[in-house]
Amino acid sequence: MELFFKARSVVVIGASRNPSKVGHVILKNLLESCFQGKLFAVNPHASSILNVACYVSVAHLPQKVDLAVIAVPVVEALRVVEDCGKKNIKHIIIVTAGFGELGNHDDEIRLQVLAKKYNLEVIGPNVLGTLDVYSGVDTLFLPRLRLNRPKPGGISFACQSGAVGSAMLDLMAKEGYGCAKFISYGNATIVDESDLVEYLGDDKETKVICLYVEGVKNGRRFFDVCKRVSRKKPIVFLKGGVTAAGGKAAISHTAALAGSVEVYKAAMLQAGVVWADNLEDLFDFARVLEKAKKPLGRKVQVITNGGGYGILSADAVELNKLVLTSLQSRTVDSLKKVLPPLVVVSNPMDLIGDATTERYRVAMDACLSDKQVDMLLVILLYQTPLITSDVVDVVKEAFTNTKKPLFVVSTGGEFTDVHKRNLEEFGIPCFSLPERAVKAMKILVDYYNKD
Amino acid sequence: MELFFKARSVVVIGASRNPSKVGHVILKNLLESCFQGKLFAVNPHASSILNVACYVSVAHLPQKVDLAVIAVPVVEALRVVEDCGKKNIKHIIIVTAGFGELGNHDDEIRLQVLAKKYNLEVIGPNVLGTLDVYSGVDTLFLPRLRLNRPKPGGISFACQSGAVGSAMLDLMAKEGYGCAKFISYGNATIVDESDLVEYLGDDKETKVICLYVEGVKNGRRFFDVCKRVSRKKPIVFLKGGVTAAGGKAAISHTAALAGSVEVYKAAMLQAGVVWADNLEDLFDFARVLEKAKKPLGRKVQVITNGGGYGILSADAVELNKLVLTSLQSRTVDSLKKVLPPLVVVSNPMDLIGDATTERYRVAMDACLSDKQVDMLLVILLYQTPLITSDVVDVVKEAFTNTKKPLFVVSTGGEFTDVHKRNLEEFGIPCFSLPERAVKAMKILVDYYNKD
Repeated sequence: MELFFKARSVVVIGASRNPSKVGHVILKNLLESCFQGKLFAVNPHASSILNVACYVSVAHLPQKVDLAVIAVPVVEALRVVEDCGKKNIKHIIIVTAGFGELGNHDDEIRLQVLAKKYNLEVIGPNVLGTLDVYSGVDTLFLPRLRLNRPKPGGISFACQSGAVGSAMLDLMAKEGYGCAKFISYGNATIVDESDLVEYLGDDKETKVICLYVEGVKNGRRFFDVCKRVSRKKPIVFLKGGVTAAGGKAAISHTAALAGSVEVYKAAMLQAGVVWADNLEDLFDFARVLEKAKKPLGRKVQVITNGGGYGILSADAVELNKLVLTSLQSRTVDSLKKVLPPLVVVSNPMDLIGDATTERYRVAMDACLSDKQVDMLLVILLYQTPLITSDVVDVVKEAFTNTKKPLFVVSTGGEFTDVHKRNLEEFGIPCFSLPERAVKAMKILVDYYNKD
Repeated sequence: MELFFKARSVVVIGASRNPSKVGHVILKNLLESCFQGKLFAVNPHASSILNVACYVSVAHLPQKVDLAVIAVPVVEALRVVEDCGKKNIKHIIIVTAGFGELGNHDDEIRLQVLAKKYNLEVIGPNVLGTLDVYSGVDTLFLPRLRLNRPKPGGISFACQSGAVGSAMLDLMAKEGYGCAKFISYGNATIVDESDLVEYLGDDKETKVICLYVEGVKNGRRFFDVCKRVSRKKPIVFLKGGVTAAGGKAAISHTAALAGSVEVYKAAMLQAGVVWADNLEDLFDFARVLEKAKKPLGRKVQVITNGGGYGILSADAVELNKLVLTSLQSRTVDSLKKVLPPLVVVSNPMDLIGDATTERYRVAMDACLSDKQVDMLLVILLYQTPLITSDVVDVVKEAFTNTKKPLFVVSTGGEFTDVHKRNLEEFGIPCFSLPERAVKAMKILVDYYNKD
């Protein structure tokens, strides 16, 4: 499996001169990424494309390569797979669609036979491709203009749907979340979700595994693998096709049999997997599990410069069965001495609308030192006039000096987004709304208390 | 009430030369807005601020003015209110804090006495201010750099918390949602939530009323007003302090007694109000109710260029008790003739990864003409290579030519955001995730079927 991500040589089979063709975009993305290995192309009608040497067929390649990406029409795909087998190319990504998802089950079976005969590892068919953010092995067939690649990080994402994957990658790039590996695995004819979870479980670059699955090939094995891997690192799981209507749609998408949601959910929770109800959950939970420190308990302190946000946060804490803590009296006393009389030294602690950066520093330091506080939720509304931009440095300092999880909530426009993204990229989980932050806190506590 | 928003003359009392002071920011915002009326300032120590003439006191003003904004320290506030009363200024916004929310109930009572004596309408104390996007009467004390003002539109927002209001206004501006009026009403000592709902109910510029309320002053009256107004236009309601913890925090914020959430929710639903569970709901529901056309039923057709998004949408439709419709067979037949064989002409209709702009046009037109379709959900993922930017024009054309509600879902980075915002500003409700879009569809159907 490793060579899917760390290949030192890649061949794009079905490379094209036409910029709108998949076989062109993949070659271009590999050229534009940080990939340092050797690149080859197969196209019988060209000598070179984008300055990459083209060969008539796989058999004509001057060397064995680590990884082949197949982007030829479905009628040619299996012949090309056989060519790869003969050339001793063991890792193959089949982008080509038109297999089981369209009722073409014969070719699926032929592919299985070929894989067995030549001992091949195959991702696909019917996939968007793969991405290793660290090595630059980028076989996605979508152009970088439309789909930004995320920065390096610890979230890996195995996704049965290419579209879900691409939209989420693009979103991750925008929001500043870090990614390790992305795999669109489509029909899962050879390499399936269990293989991927197993591989990512051992992968050092992967801190959290995200899964979007429409149908599981082998339920028993998937359960066992998840159970084993979730002891090592968090797995966040979103199931597509949890209803009759969605399940029916899944069959024509990736030929997946969706199964009952109750059965899945019960089994997954038993296997120690974090269940996501929707795409928003999937990434909120993943980045919090990647970034946040381990909480010692469920006692939350809220600091805010907006009273209403404090109230909504307090509501969310209680609704999520966390505890709105009471600070030690000596913390309260010391804060009352240094904070202005209008500040409410309680929980939520309202630093009010004229809060300064210094007021945040004093309040965060005191709360993080208080042993009654397990987690800190900092509401930071950049609309108020006396907050200076270097409040982000003050938050980073507090974050660096504590072992407790710290979450930041900021809502607003461009001015807010600049600051929010800066904190997120530093490793602090940032949210737009208090309800989302508290829900993620709850997941964090549950994850570390599941045993 | 009208003069709070359409004042032709405004005086800022407590205007300041110091750019970090509230009394400076308010004056500056009025100057920078589209406000065309006369502007005065009161400051005993300056002859002019920002080129606005300053007067020693309210008594010295050269004319009666329509609206006074008071931003003086709490110890001076009531004297200034009396000055306004004597000068026959009937509309007063008291930004100043330090009243009931800090236990200073005496001054609240004195304010009530003064209001009665001089027949005053007072918003506040302890508020962020008000905004009329059309007239430019902008008394918010937050600078435009940090808090962008939204464009003109039909959503009005009465908000007990200044911070919730300011963050949401900033977000509205960023996302391209249109706003009519915003009122931060704080302690609600004179003008309360019932007065505001009543006023906004009659206001022609307001299409949808958004409310964030921590505590209701007079429950019976509020219920009656909501019941009456909700027959004319939608009211979306978010309650702060729905738990014991949140309720406790509300007391020190706006001196509001929060009350039980079950009681509130049951009463509000009975009054025809749309209940929001969180801030995200509040604005999703409001803009859908503002923009979307009236649906004839609950039958939804989904069009997508990503199979996974189709499945997640189908799941959401079923989970929200809407109906994933079946197209008429003649629609299916005619589409099969013109669409490529890989396209799944069903529901969800998957135009697949090589979908073109033209393919969207054909599919949308056919679905919107089908009488089995009450609402159309269009998933538009801009990552796929053959979609051209003018797909937004195709969507706008379909939207313009139909009486059916049309929703668009797009997830991604900057490239996506540019297109998404363009559609939103044209009047089409756009969402980042299918689950949010379908939840809003459900609210729309319920609103039009509540009787």
